Amino acid sequence: MPIPLVIDTDTAQDDCVAILAGLLTPEADLRGITMVAGNVGFDRQVKNAFMTFNVAAKQVPMYLGSRLPLVRPWESAENVHGDGAGGLDMDFSGFEPEAEHAVDALLRMADEAAGELNVVAIGPLTNIALAVRKRPEFASQVKHLVVMGGSNNARGNITAAAEFNFYVDPEAAKIVFDAGFNVTVVPWAPLTLKQAVFGRDVLDRIAQIETPLAHFFTSVCSATLAFDESVGIPGTTHPDSLSVAVLLRPELVTKSAQYNVDIETGSELTRGYAAMSWGVHGLAANATVIEEIDADGFRDFLLDMLGQT
Amino acid sequence: MPIPLVIDTDTAQDDCVAILAGLLTPEADLRGITMVAGNVGFDRQVKNAFMTFNVAAKQVPMYLGSRLPLVRPWESAENVHGDGAGGLDMDFSGFEPEAEHAVDALLRMADEAAGELNVVAIGPLTNIALAVRKRPEFASQVKHLVVMGGSNNARGNITAAAEFNFYVDPEAAKIVFDAGFNVTVVPWAPLTLKQAVFGRDVLDRIAQIETPLAHFFTSVCSATLAFDESVGIPGTTHPDSLSVAVLLRPELVTKSAQYNVDIETGSELTRGYAAMSWGVHGLAANATVIEEIDADGFRDFLLDMLGQT
Amino acid sequence: MPIPLVIDTDTAQDDCVAILAGLLTPEADLRGITMVAGNVGFDRQVKNAFMTFNVAAKQVPMYLGSRLPLVRPWESAENVHGDGAGGLDMDFSGFEPEAEHAVDALLRMADEAAGELNVVAIGPLTNIALAVRKRPEFASQVKHLVVMGGSNNARGNITAAAEFNFYVDPEAAKIVFDAGFNVTVVPWAPLTLKQAVFGRDVLDRIAQIETPLAHFFTSVCSATLAFDESVGIPGTTHPDSLSVAVLLRPELVTKSAQYNVDIETGSELTRGYAAMSWGVHGLAANATVIEEIDADGFRDFLLDMLGQT
Amino acid sequence: MPIPLVIDTDTAQDDCVAILAGLLTPEADLRGITMVAGNVGFDRQVKNAFMTFNVAAKQVPMYLGSRLPLVRPWESAENVHGDGAGGLDMDFSGFEPEAEHAVDALLRMADEAAGELNVVAIGPLTNIALAVRKRPEFASQVKHLVVMGGSNNARGNITAAAEFNFYVDPEAAKIVFDAGFNVTVVPWAPLTLKQAVFGRDVLDRIAQIETPLAHFFTSVCSATLAFDESVGIPGTTHPDSLSVAVLLRPELVTKSAQYNVDIETGSELTRGYAAMSWGVHGLAANATVIEEIDADGFRDFLLDMLGQT
Ligand SMILES: [Ca+2]
Ligand SMILES: [Ca+2]
Ligand SMILES: [Ca+2]
Ligand SMILES: [Ca+2]
Repeated sequence: MPIPLVIDTDTAQDDCVAILAGLLTPEADLRGITMVAGNVGFDRQVKNAFMTFNVAAKQVPMYLGSRLPLVRPWESAENVHGDGAGGLDMDFSGFEPEAEHAVDALLRMADEAAGELNVVAIGPLTNIALAVRKRPEFASQVKHLVVMGGSNNARGNITAAAEFNFYVDPEAAKIVFDAGFNVTVVPWAPLTLKQAVFGRDVLDRIAQIETPLAHFFTSVCSATLAFDESVGIPGTTHPDSLSVAVLLRPELVTKSAQYNVDIETGSELTRGYAAMSWGVHGLAANATVIEEIDADGFRDFLLDMLGQT
Repeated sequence: MPIPLVIDTDTAQDDCVAILAGLLTPEADLRGITMVAGNVGFDRQVKNAFMTFNVAAKQVPMYLGSRLPLVRPWESAENVHGDGAGGLDMDFSGFEPEAEHAVDALLRMADEAAGELNVVAIGPLTNIALAVRKRPEFASQVKHLVVMGGSNNARGNITAAAEFNFYVDPEAAKIVFDAGFNVTVVPWAPLTLKQAVFGRDVLDRIAQIETPLAHFFTSVCSATLAFDESVGIPGTTHPDSLSVAVLLRPELVTKSAQYNVDIETGSELTRGYAAMSWGVHGLAANATVIEEIDADGFRDFLLDMLGQT
Repeated sequence: MPIPLVIDTDTAQDDCVAILAGLLTPEADLRGITMVAGNVGFDRQVKNAFMTFNVAAKQVPMYLGSRLPLVRPWESAENVHGDGAGGLDMDFSGFEPEAEHAVDALLRMADEAAGELNVVAIGPLTNIALAVRKRPEFASQVKHLVVMGGSNNARGNITAAAEFNFYVDPEAAKIVFDAGFNVTVVPWAPLTLKQAVFGRDVLDRIAQIETPLAHFFTSVCSATLAFDESVGIPGTTHPDSLSVAVLLRPELVTKSAQYNVDIETGSELTRGYAAMSWGVHGLAANATVIEEIDADGFRDFLLDMLGQT
Repeated sequence: MPIPLVIDTDTAQDDCVAILAGLLTPEADLRGITMVAGNVGFDRQVKNAFMTFNVAAKQVPMYLGSRLPLVRPWESAENVHGDGAGGLDMDFSGFEPEAEHAVDALLRMADEAAGELNVVAIGPLTNIALAVRKRPEFASQVKHLVVMGGSNNARGNITAAAEFNFYVDPEAAKIVFDAGFNVTVVPWAPLTLKQAVFGRDVLDRIAQIETPLAHFFTSVCSATLAFDESVGIPGTTHPDSLSVAVLLRPELVTKSAQYNVDIETGSELTRGYAAMSWGVHGLAANATVIEEIDADGFRDFLLDMLGQT
């Protein structure tokens, strides 16, 4: 039985891999992607997603969402991601986003799926927050919301305190965690850093796969390898594709727990910090946080996909 | 030449008078009202607006907007306003809001008016903020945005620091003042408290006008008179109808100036405080703040309207 | 019966006049002054105070206190005050501050006065906060604490929201208002701006007084006249000397009320804002705020003093 | 050559062990302890310290410091610590604190030691902050300040975000990290949780040591064992005694690094969070943070001490 899903994305690097996973995993019924301001310039993100469609030889409707965070000015991660596609380019004629706004598309697809729609949000949560503010019942219409963001009592990336997605739009993240979704969190640290980093050994294996998908992966993901290594991360990081994987292959999750998650919106030092309380502070749980995965299984999930021709 | 406008309202008390002004002032071309969470229960606000249509014997489309502030839980002013209509009731059959969401309606009407649409926002700014986040160009499409909110370096109402509309949704207010609208502010203090309070003398004059409109005014507005007097305000307050008046009758404004307006979103003590800097602190102006009006002219504007039969 | 007092000061301009009032008013028993970081450089403030002693031909012990605000870096008002003494200078030989720290001196003098000591604090509240943290009972040992600071639901000076003394050290101000002092507040606006500004007419009268004190006043206070006028204040401002006056001549106070005063410490936009709640928000009163004075009486109090030879 | 030190403490549980280490380690020249508001009632803390002197059969001067955090109300950890001494009691006659205030004692001892004084701060940093505010040069007079507090990009204890010492007085902690001390941080997590927890095996070994010191350790530290286990910590925690150990036995530190440490003071959700930036965010280092210790060496250090008769 296919799994209907939408991916909400600020397409750069691992977002591309996540979209590939949504397009190419057999059990996935990817109904569209929605674009949100995040990693790199909005129009560049759109191009990155179209390039991903192109290499997958498959496309789904793309809906454009918010070009700005909810309350704050946009801050990019271009210093990390460059153009987010390792300099790849192509002819974009024939690729056009839909006219419908991402927020309206999310609400419509939720209606059409009648309680079966899943959303994997791998960028700042602006679109998801706007959707639930436009229609509060959206939270209960979504079967499962997987959010890539925050760290589970561990280091951030854009600051010591904060991971990028929540930092860019902390108010949106706060709204989402207050809204009553059935939400699962894929955190940056420790989870991604421990179990979803591909070191040079894995990257070498991928480089030897003779498929356009693998070549695309190498071009797109290896672009930040030098940067990652310079900040002590021994490989490319895959939190976004992991987020799609945990929806489509829940057996990859080997440990998770209920947490109360709240987001800092009132201070600059800790802007976007996700307070993940593990149950000893008397706060009601509002999210499942993934603590451990089957890392080999996740790697093989991606390797198998990249081997498709 | 008629003035096209939309009123964005949390309909209670003076919002009703503002809607009357929009419906009945000859030069007004009221194209709709949009409802936003604020003073009293959302559904009660809808009823209050329909009662206003009913007494005016004229109606325009009503679009329902956000039932919640952007980021925070809703806080009502029901302790002040009661039901916001002085206990009036009626048969609501035949009165139905439109299906279109207020935010979409605002964007559509802005398109249709081709640069000529005015918006008078007399509740929390949630709808306006959502509209400008959905389409950033909305700010330049609106010819003139009149906002009732904040105080100009003077006392608040819901707290010492803050006026109700900005307190309820400070993030929305911050978005609106950052968005680039041509915006005019009608502040609570000192302007409203000095020049838009109707004491018992004026209320007595209104009570003697033998029209349904005047009776409606008396029922609706006098409901909070005892409360107002208990907190030192010698009459009923009319910031919302004043906001409509300054759009329709700009000659009523006798003094205004350019200010930088920014809204406090990061602290509880000063939540919703509007920092209105009058030009000596080196901040760029982003709003016109009304400092003085022709108070007699405003009073007569309302009295004339209430005398219509 | 003399009134024992200490003046805690960041000596510049009107602080000098306040110290003169403490030295020269017959009923005052000025037991010392304590220096705190504020208006201008700390060492410059010390010199300004010694010049004041010199022109008064009378001196009291001077104790040096905190050279920094409690938590934050120091911010000066030198752009407003210059050196705070209108460029005056003198031979400082023979003038030496005491070795005892201001905080210890305050605590010792409170002990010695056995419940009769008054403190007039006309700079940032760092010293007073440190004293009450070193010994919590200090709050009840002080008979009357007069604080110059904040605005009473009116404009600030260093920002729209905040008056300088509370802005510079908001945490200290918060501590003081939480500590249980019998405290009276002399606010910047509206009180000082309405009733303690000397326009060119009064300044001309002072300029014609043929005493060293009047010459000193003119040199020191008129230095900021051009600045004041450039920001819309039609004369020199005298909140500090007013604070001494209301202690020594309580009959000058014609209207005051009980308020809850709390200070913003958690936000930059409203840093140092004093929330003065006038009794309608359900908060317990912790301060008396002066609302009106006998402005002519205050002016004559200073003119008489400046005429002393 | 003996190492002169002062321990600043909120004496409960492991603070007692830390004081024992200061008293009984041969190379330590403990010149006094200073008491600060923290874990349990201030007077209870004083008793706990005297009991520690008593069991060590050795005492040093005790100076009483701040009974309140700098800006905020006191919050105890009595729910965790009980009385902080496992219900032990004794005859306190003959035990008296000094008259000198802790802050003055710190400053005097720094003078007397002429650049050689070390301070180990194992409670909230109120006293240290007050000392450096009273005399800014104190920061450079102290040879080495070891601070127990915060977490190094890992979970807190009193909240998800914050460790108790920094949570109780975040403003004091911020002052201390801004002041220019040569400061080393012993964090709660991961360091203490990974390497300074004594499980039931070690506690059993200690219980079998036939000395008054070991009996005292067992009574005092095991009191919270059940609580610790209930929140997932498999033993008693020893961050305070570790802090003394790293000063006296620097060879126990096997890994440390330079960090920028800043403390959250402006938000409730993240109150007291220590942002420890490890060098990739462009912030200047202001502290050494201990990342790993020789855990066996530390355990043996304490076991040896408890075996003393
Ligand atoms: Ca992403
Ligand atoms: Ca309204
Ligand atoms: Ca002053
Ligand atoms: Ca401790």
